[in-house]
Amino acid sequence: MTEKEKTTEEKKEKKPVEETVKEEKTTEAPQTQRVAQNTVFIGGKPPMNYVLAVITSLSASNAKKVTLKARGRAITTAVDTAEITRRRFIKDLKVSNISIGTEEMPAREGENRTRMVSTIEITLTKD
Amino acid sequence: MTEKEKTTEEKKEKKPVEETVKEEKTTEAPQTQRVAQNTVFIGGKPPMNYVLAVITSLSASNAKKVTLKARGRAITTAVDTAEITRRRFIKDLKVSNISIGTEEMPAREGENRTRMVSTIEITLTKD
Repeated sequence: MTEKEKTTEEKKEKKPVEETVKEEKTTEAPQTQRVAQNTVFIGGKPPMNYVLAVITSLSASNAKKVTLKARGRAITTAVDTAEITRRRFIKDLKVSNISIGTEEMPAREGENRTRMVSTIEITLTKD
Repeated sequence: MTEKEKTTEEKKEKKPVEETVKEEKTTEAPQTQRVAQNTVFIGGKPPMNYVLAVITSLSASNAKKVTLKARGRAITTAVDTAEITRRRFIKDLKVSNISIGTEEMPAREGENRTRMVSTIEITLTKD
């Protein structure tokens, strides 16, 4: 195995699978080409953690738009995050789009069927 | 207190406060003037219960539109209900509108602050 292949392999392993890890992805990589499209992945932490992530991503990159993504039980947290951010912190923030969907998740250990999990995407836009 | 005032008072008291009571409101009153605007209130039961309510309300009143309303942790169930209904049962059902909001709830016993609860409304439309 060459050195390059090894690095690719490592990258694959690092790919976050759990929701709780996901939001670090956004804060880790603000220097990529996707600056214009801010995304905050919502996991199992309290809404306030994600409110902070939303505020940070809006002010740091000076972007006008941020998208919250969540699935399963974190959907409620995503709605809470959007509502707390725009009611308590950034008053001119508008909910410009909400879409829902379904994702197929691999079966848990001991189960033999893939699970269907609902997802939500909430886009917040600053005037 | 006149008889009429008494009735109004009783009505106020009957207003459902808990989520788990709410969905009965819809099934109880299909003969009111709000037939065109079907609403299913989502509570703490499994999504399948509400999927059935959505299918029933669409076929019984021959309506083209149904609105799912939920708050707090039931928001996830509302999204699940919408997704299961349109993916597994009524294929030509479209998500025509989603809106989120915040409601003030009375404080729980032992607490002295009102709680803010997130809400969601999902409107499904049949072609």
